[in-house]
Amino acid sequence: MCRWIAYRGAPTYLETFVAAPAHSLIHQSLHAAEAVTGTNGDGFGVGWYADRDEPGLYRETLPAWSDENLRHLCRQIRARLFFAHVRASTGPATSRANCHPFAYGRWLFMHNGQIGGWPQMRRTVEGMIPDALYAARMGGTDSEALFLAAIAAGAEDDPVRAVTATLETVARKMRAKGVTEPLRFAAALTDGRDLYAFRWSSDDRPPTLYWSESEDRLLVASEPLDGSRERWALVPPDHALVAPAGAAPRLQPMTLRENRAA
Amino acid sequence: MCRWIAYRGAPTYLETFVAAPAHSLIHQSLHAAEAVTGTNGDGFGVGWYADRDEPGLYRETLPAWSDENLRHLCRQIRARLFFAHVRASTGPATSRANCHPFAYGRWLFMHNGQIGGWPQMRRTVEGMIPDALYAARMGGTDSEALFLAAIAAGAEDDPVRAVTATLETVARKMRAKGVTEPLRFAAALTDGRDLYAFRWSSDDRPPTLYWSESEDRLLVASEPLDGSRERWALVPPDHALVAPAGAAPRLQPMTLRENRAA
Amino acid sequence: MCRWIAYRGAPTYLETFVAAPAHSLIHQSLHAAEAVTGTNGDGFGVGWYADRDEPGLYRETLPAWSDENLRHLCRQIRARLFFAHVRASTGPATSRANCHPFAYGRWLFMHNGQIGGWPQMRRTVEGMIPDALYAARMGGTDSEALFLAAIAAGAEDDPVRAVTATLETVARKMRAKGVTEPLRFAAALTDGRDLYAFRWSSDDRPPTLYWSESEDRLLVASEPLDGSRERWALVPPDHALVAPAGAAPRLQPMTLRENRAA
Amino acid sequence: MCRWIAYRGAPTYLETFVAAPAHSLIHQSLHAAEAVTGTNGDGFGVGWYADRDEPGLYRETLPAWSDENLRHLCRQIRARLFFAHVRASTGPATSRANCHPFAYGRWLFMHNGQIGGWPQMRRTVEGMIPDALYAARMGGTDSEALFLAAIAAGAEDDPVRAVTATLETVARKMRAKGVTEPLRFAAALTDGRDLYAFRWSSDDRPPTLYWSESEDRLLVASEPLDGSRERWALVPPDHALVAPAGAAPRLQPMTLRENRAA
Repeated sequence: MCRWIAYRGAPTYLETFVAAPAHSLIHQSLHAAEAVTGTNGDGFGVGWYADRDEPGLYRETLPAWSDENLRHLCRQIRARLFFAHVRASTGPATSRANCHPFAYGRWLFMHNGQIGGWPQMRRTVEGMIPDALYAARMGGTDSEALFLAAIAAGAEDDPVRAVTATLETVARKMRAKGVTEPLRFAAALTDGRDLYAFRWSSDDRPPTLYWSESEDRLLVASEPLDGSRERWALVPPDHALVAPAGAAPRLQPMTLRENRAA
Repeated sequence: MCRWIAYRGAPTYLETFVAAPAHSLIHQSLHAAEAVTGTNGDGFGVGWYADRDEPGLYRETLPAWSDENLRHLCRQIRARLFFAHVRASTGPATSRANCHPFAYGRWLFMHNGQIGGWPQMRRTVEGMIPDALYAARMGGTDSEALFLAAIAAGAEDDPVRAVTATLETVARKMRAKGVTEPLRFAAALTDGRDLYAFRWSSDDRPPTLYWSESEDRLLVASEPLDGSRERWALVPPDHALVAPAGAAPRLQPMTLRENRAA
Repeated sequence: MCRWIAYRGAPTYLETFVAAPAHSLIHQSLHAAEAVTGTNGDGFGVGWYADRDEPGLYRETLPAWSDENLRHLCRQIRARLFFAHVRASTGPATSRANCHPFAYGRWLFMHNGQIGGWPQMRRTVEGMIPDALYAARMGGTDSEALFLAAIAAGAEDDPVRAVTATLETVARKMRAKGVTEPLRFAAALTDGRDLYAFRWSSDDRPPTLYWSESEDRLLVASEPLDGSRERWALVPPDHALVAPAGAAPRLQPMTLRENRAA
Repeated sequence: MCRWIAYRGAPTYLETFVAAPAHSLIHQSLHAAEAVTGTNGDGFGVGWYADRDEPGLYRETLPAWSDENLRHLCRQIRARLFFAHVRASTGPATSRANCHPFAYGRWLFMHNGQIGGWPQMRRTVEGMIPDALYAARMGGTDSEALFLAAIAAGAEDDPVRAVTATLETVARKMRAKGVTEPLRFAAALTDGRDLYAFRWSSDDRPPTLYWSESEDRLLVASEPLDGSRERWALVPPDHALVAPAGAAPRLQPMTLRENRAA
């Protein structure tokens, strides 16, 4: 169970949300409140959009709480949109390539959850990544594979449809292999302008996902950041939060063609 | 509040106590039971005596639970005496040089506790390390400074006297500087043959320290290792456990010349 | 162009060949003599057989020359057979999972060379690893993929045949994809008892590979270790050095069914 | 012999000088031209001034050439003044705290060279750092100690005088201890506005130091960056380059009160 936060709004220093408040992401790396595992010490990452179209990326295998570089970068880097993620591994090794967010061209992705039975499913899910995208497969996580599979499924054109279709396909393949552990997915995706967040699970226990909007900013997070004064709302299960640049965010059901497995 | 374990006995694989049992040290790195901070993720280290007189040392900045090298080494290395330590920093950075155990010649040392007001006290305590030993000062911790100061005070000849005198001197210098935070000390020291453990504090809350003896081995640890069947006893406050090679361990008071500050 | 050394013989401290002589592997990490790239600073690894059937493994992303843990381990660990490798990446990232040697069960493998056009070829070569072995694919290197493909081709039963067949297949697939860069391969493989080394290339420039035998030990290396008094012989191109436990090493041609591409 | 570059001018992406040109600093980390040691793989660092008065800092123990985070940061971060440094250790361990640049408040410092006989001299030079500054001593290098000693000697008010006086004192203490190895010093210092560079040695072999000025920027570096079209001039031995914000740089002799030792 990882913890993450996505921000879009007036250019702001990353430290405002990553390092500063009582329940900042760095704080959550040691003491997550709404997670099964309270410690998220298996690496971390930040991805941000400043002046360029492509995001910057800083990922490290140390726990977020002990990385002095992270504090420096969060204090210096100002972004109009950023993702930050602290990792609690569900299996794959602690390496930079396994840390979120993942970048592909202008796109960033991060994820909390897992593909049940990953060692069994990995080959199959990697098979959903076409040759042209396969060189972008750097690590061994289920999360990165889901991201590249969703890109292959058209996420650059229609993120909600592509992500939903990808989850549907993976869940079907899991059932075909007899995997009974769930597919759980609380994730964020962006091209640096539009922001998408997803809360979905193959069982009835999707990971928590909150959002908070004020006039000049949108926050999406695994759990509310205390110390900030925003009001937080839960994204309903099996819904996407769709937040195009310059328009109001809206909730959209993630409709699956098949019935869900119990 | 770090966690540590010391073992002396029949040559045994490190994994028996570091990686295997339910409350192994790796387990404690994520879930310490008797510590203020439940997470000990600021690096770790093992020091061991195998065929040579000088100890081997493996220290790393990753949390113990995510270091695959540690698992390999613990599975391969068999030692007649070893120290293992998981760190929760009280301030100094997460670097290998700040990880326990510390080695000097044939000696190993590790520590749980702290010198209160360390940023203020550091210069003074480093001043207790003579020139000849100063090149061995690699990091910035209070623990390493205490070790080298104790060596300077004669720990190679009379460990209990030297450690007690060092603590006494440091506590006096703390009072002289007006430091009100305590000096707390649960530590282990060895030359690869004799084993010494210390439980002492300048206030009435010394860190816990347990020991357990069976016919062929002696274990000393911050907290009992569950899953092992040994019975564990607390070392009394202000006492040293003295365990010469080939003789029964005994408890010995750490007598200070001065009264302790409240 | 990586550098590596394999040792089999009387149990010896790793430092004898990894750290000590003038042209030790650590020295070669900074100053390789017979390599295109003189610096091998993209991580390193050692794998060794001591008391257990399975090898130990220590791999790190720092350059070998600056890792104090490596010096300690080489000074303490005594092995009857070990592999040591310093890496100069031909592309894949510097991560532990991309460092040699690679382990699978009782087997160890390390490699100098490359599969030309790896980003293009990766998917195809990974396709040669069957499902049952795919969970052992930890990194993104061509070397690890070749190892697992060779295991799948029967390397546990007939290493020379399996490795030769794997190279043949990969070279054929490279030609089919129009890859003109060569497949080069100087590698070592062992189950902890028998030792195999291979020197092969799809063009006429196979990486160098030397061996040296004395009464109680066999050394195989990318380049001779100076300071040792052994005499070194080149393994001829397209030959394997086969060294069963308890028998004299012999050279064996790696016969390919097809003609080699120019 | 480390390599470094300092830039002041129109806000520019760090990659222009750190990652891009043929003789960029990353290139020099593998292939320095004018250095005794061609490989500078013992960590690196960048310090930069963007929107804040205090510099940002990113230091890492990997070689610069293999750190993907560095490439990302250099591509995203735009600064009006920055320092970048690749390290070839003269002894102290490869740790972040031993990587340049060093920061103190608004000040940044980096250095190529060394205090001869450092293990012998360390205690003495650290003694030149007053208590109030001692908490800022994070690592074990001669360079950081020189920086803090120079701050103590008044570098915030008169950098050239303070640095010269510090070198003079250290050289005198070296002679007093019978150290015959030289004190060599090619360094840069800034408060984010004014830029100072120094080239000095206690013998007649000061490390190289070049500078290049165009209308909108000043570059100072250990060796010229090829691929840039600037013309480079050597700073004469025992001279400082003084470049106040908004004024033309000037060369200024570093006058010592005592004669130099041969």
